[in-house]
Amino acid sequence: MALAIDLGGTDLKSAVVHPSGRILHQQRLSSGSKEGKEKILERILGAIALERDWAVQKAYSIRGVGLGIPGIVSFPGGIVHRSPHFPAWRDYPLRAVLKKRLKIPFVLDNDANMAALGEGWRGAGRGRRNYVLLTLGTGIGGGIVMDGKIHHGDSGFAGELGHLVIEKNGRPCNCGGRGCLEMYASATGIQHELLQSRVLRSSTPEDLYQLATTGDKTAQLIYEKFGQALGAGIASIVNALDIELILLGGGLARAWKMFIGPVRQAIKSHTYAETSKRIHLKQALLANRAGLIGAAKAILGLDHK
Amino acid sequence: MALAIDLGGTDLKSAVVHPSGRILHQQRLSSGSKEGKEKILERILGAIALERDWAVQKAYSIRGVGLGIPGIVSFPGGIVHRSPHFPAWRDYPLRAVLKKRLKIPFVLDNDANMAALGEGWRGAGRGRRNYVLLTLGTGIGGGIVMDGKIHHGDSGFAGELGHLVIEKNGRPCNCGGRGCLEMYASATGIQHELLQSRVLRSSTPEDLYQLATTGDKTAQLIYEKFGQALGAGIASIVNALDIELILLGGGLARAWKMFIGPVRQAIKSHTYAETSKRIHLKQALLANRAGLIGAAKAILGLDHK
Repeated sequence: MALAIDLGGTDLKSAVVHPSGRILHQQRLSSGSKEGKEKILERILGAIALERDWAVQKAYSIRGVGLGIPGIVSFPGGIVHRSPHFPAWRDYPLRAVLKKRLKIPFVLDNDANMAALGEGWRGAGRGRRNYVLLTLGTGIGGGIVMDGKIHHGDSGFAGELGHLVIEKNGRPCNCGGRGCLEMYASATGIQHELLQSRVLRSSTPEDLYQLATTGDKTAQLIYEKFGQALGAGIASIVNALDIELILLGGGLARAWKMFIGPVRQAIKSHTYAETSKRIHLKQALLANRAGLIGAAKAILGLDHK
Repeated sequence: MALAIDLGGTDLKSAVVHPSGRILHQQRLSSGSKEGKEKILERILGAIALERDWAVQKAYSIRGVGLGIPGIVSFPGGIVHRSPHFPAWRDYPLRAVLKKRLKIPFVLDNDANMAALGEGWRGAGRGRRNYVLLTLGTGIGGGIVMDGKIHHGDSGFAGELGHLVIEKNGRPCNCGGRGCLEMYASATGIQHELLQSRVLRSSTPEDLYQLATTGDKTAQLIYEKFGQALGAGIASIVNALDIELILLGGGLARAWKMFIGPVRQAIKSHTYAETSKRIHLKQALLANRAGLIGAAKAILGLDHK
């Protein structure tokens, strides 16, 4: 069995995962994101202890712990350079700290990378060696898988696909830059459009979906812009990497039918025909379990089907 | 020894290359780009025969031929889907055709990929496992090297870095898209700015460099815009792949000191500090020999230092 941790801004999810990929037991605790770094650590260690106790009761042996952490995490060094949800973690040597406290093997990685591993193992990327996962939420997370392995890059910071520059003098982003993909093709982007729209100013992204399904033109136009931006970003990924399978996850991917047409159109217009005709867009399948299942996969390794 | 072919829009270069990377003999013929596909093929085969004759005279044995071809070339299939300089090649099965005619091993790849291999072997990427080469000319060519190998992607079309979308509704590009990097950070981009500028309308890119060195503000501003666009494109590459070494080659890279400040500034503003401080920009070293040396490297393999 593998023990999995998926740390989010609100929830700290933990699970015991069978080598088949099935979640045998899981819990959801508060992640306490505004607390000091020691307290967050204690919460993580507490969640691990709870899962371990459960496994011991069942007489399951645990091979290790996979941990998915949001933010800029070095790999393999495991330093959390920054994490928007956990401001107390600034160049925090989480791997070294965990090494002292955990007596079993563990793997630490960015949460989007773990989700990408999960989708490749038991989700929409099953059986594929090369694919990219984009998670569309408040921002955009990314995981690039090539030859069956997460592409980490020189320091572990690869896959920051929310910060592809799609409008060089565009909207300011939290990263300090301008025109990042996640300023357009995320809940933040939708919120921006809602505020710009006189009609829909007081709406939420949830209202927007309802409105669009009932045929509201303004709502549909917002999804169209969202899709055009997302398609431009995917075109950049594909032109650079020639990876044919693109998985879209995160809460906003549920509005699939509202934006996927404009996404396809934008990819087509921004790539050569040889490339665009090969692109396969798929909705991620594991929803909010992707991170846990991928974290388990990081432990269970490639020898398990 | 390896035999190398570098096909360009104007010149067909060929060489005999020593396992040390030294070019022992080379020739430059016209590439005859406007001719039919059979004639272009005969020119290539003719160049190979000439180099082979030279090698035979010297009693050198040839291990194979590396060929760098401009355009969208599938890998390993070797179909030239399109090549702007060779309009007669449309879904042309060059690999299969060469296989019938050449009696020795050969490797066929995109010319920018070959140049990237060359720079990694004997140029600015020497000893590095991960780097990206951007060649700044009329357009922008790209080669991505990871773990010492060219990244080809699913069909061989990877590395089309001139078509990173940096302005989603920007200038129309020859690829059919809009806002591609090569519409801004290339000779084409400079030409566009020259035409926009009332003062410099009749200038050439060469004049521009002279003007900028003498302190002309309009000329310097054009390089600044060029650098900002290039920096935005490099930021996208780095955010996606976390590759720290970026090599800039091609004729325009010679204007290095005119644009490199704005490039650095743009990378800094479009990436996290953890990433931007690690980026290393270097001028490519092999000039127009990179393609030949890389084509030889593709034959001589990794066992030769």
